[in-house]
Amino acid sequence: MLTAGNMTVILHQTRSPENLGSVARVMANFGFSRLILSDPRTYNFRGAERLAVKGDAVLEAMAVAQSLPEALKDCVYAVGTTSRTQIEGRTALTPEEAVARLAEQSRRGRVALVLGGEQRGLSNEELAFCTDFLVIPTSEVQPSMNLAQAAAVLLYLCSREGRKPAEVAPSLEPEQQGAKMGTVRALGDRMRQVMLEAQFLNPQAPDHILRELERSLLRAELTQREAELWLTAFKHLGRAMGGSKGTPGKGAPSRGPDPKD
Amino acid sequence: MLTAGNMTVILHQTRSPENLGSVARVMANFGFSRLILSDPRTYNFRGAERLAVKGDAVLEAMAVAQSLPEALKDCVYAVGTTSRTQIEGRTALTPEEAVARLAEQSRRGRVALVLGGEQRGLSNEELAFCTDFLVIPTSEVQPSMNLAQAAAVLLYLCSREGRKPAEVAPSLEPEQQGAKMGTVRALGDRMRQVMLEAQFLNPQAPDHILRELERSLLRAELTQREAELWLTAFKHLGRAMGGSKGTPGKGAPSRGPDPKD
Repeated sequence: MLTAGNMTVILHQTRSPENLGSVARVMANFGFSRLILSDPRTYNFRGAERLAVKGDAVLEAMAVAQSLPEALKDCVYAVGTTSRTQIEGRTALTPEEAVARLAEQSRRGRVALVLGGEQRGLSNEELAFCTDFLVIPTSEVQPSMNLAQAAAVLLYLCSREGRKPAEVAPSLEPEQQGAKMGTVRALGDRMRQVMLEAQFLNPQAPDHILRELERSLLRAELTQREAELWLTAFKHLGRAMGGSKGTPGKGAPSRGPDPKD
Repeated sequence: MLTAGNMTVILHQTRSPENLGSVARVMANFGFSRLILSDPRTYNFRGAERLAVKGDAVLEAMAVAQSLPEALKDCVYAVGTTSRTQIEGRTALTPEEAVARLAEQSRRGRVALVLGGEQRGLSNEELAFCTDFLVIPTSEVQPSMNLAQAAAVLLYLCSREGRKPAEVAPSLEPEQQGAKMGTVRALGDRMRQVMLEAQFLNPQAPDHILRELERSLLRAELTQREAELWLTAFKHLGRAMGGSKGTPGKGAPSRGPDPKD
């Protein structure tokens, strides 16, 4: 069940106070309160309060992250919005599918809906930071929706999902909770480094293969413990390959895998 | 199935070019094109084009009506939006129920989604002109949605309904088509007049009982022919009661009911 507690809205590269204010208002309309601006294009958001209309609490509690991966780091699942239905072999979810997945994944931890960037939408690279992406089907005559109106459609669907009778979710032990995207991202970065050193990835174009691997891990719905184990494993592999240049100041451990490493 | 051809959006007492432009854009987003302004509060809509973003075609084809009943007169069904879940014993539809009903009724003729008025919402009297009314469920903290965002939510749902496989609707003979709201309204006016003359309705408070009667007719989903028959019947009743004062310049017909009267 999607609630104010487990659902985060991330606005990427926000530029307009009007959009920020309107999104804050519609979040308040539908009972969501956790808003993060990632890599905002301006910090001058005067005027947002006027449009927020009782969404002030959302604006006051708003957080700012330097980048999209940073904004996502505590989430176990994120879905980004775009107008492209196919990206690098992945297929867009419908809004209803995306919202069902947000609700399902929210049992593992925090989930995020990512909107932006205001002028050209989210890039392929930015969407690759998200677990899934969605498209709101629109007419060919005018496919591009206003950001605040897209937010209204999606948050309405999220609020409807939130009204369904909650399934009895067993409360999870910390280690059984879903892997945080920050940990998964660190794992991806480490995999890239180690696999480049190992000359497994082509240094001219490492991303395609790396993403396939990352996605297979995402599909596995790793627990936090598993993600930490993977991360530790790749750290060890890097060191074992003599990659001390990749992990300066860190000596090889004398013990086996340790999730807290 | 809801299409650009059978679905009308009516904005009541529009005041802001921003709202008009945003609604035109989201109509274009979801493939709807028929927009009527009823009783607009201003005709100075400079700025709407800027926000319409490729919704120009919608703005160019836009019609203006002096009143809500006039805007509705060619429709067989209309649903108005409000924030009140109970009005005079009637219960609000959910957005999904309303959209299903719009789709179902669109097989009988044109249907309308009514939004407005911008500052205080639609009044009880204005909602009484609509066949049904709907509420978008919102949080108690901030129940009031921005008009263009409410339009986005509802038109998205309408567009989804439009994507369902069309049922094979038999093409109806003109007389079997749904009663136009203009005809039904004329019937209600005539009923009021005749029933007041007959001292059936309390002249101090005629509306409550009258509306119950009108609604029972609406529930019957009259055909256009039936509505015209009812209207003619009440005209005759009025004349028979000596109500020539109510229908000046019209003599009693020498024939029986005639839908074209």
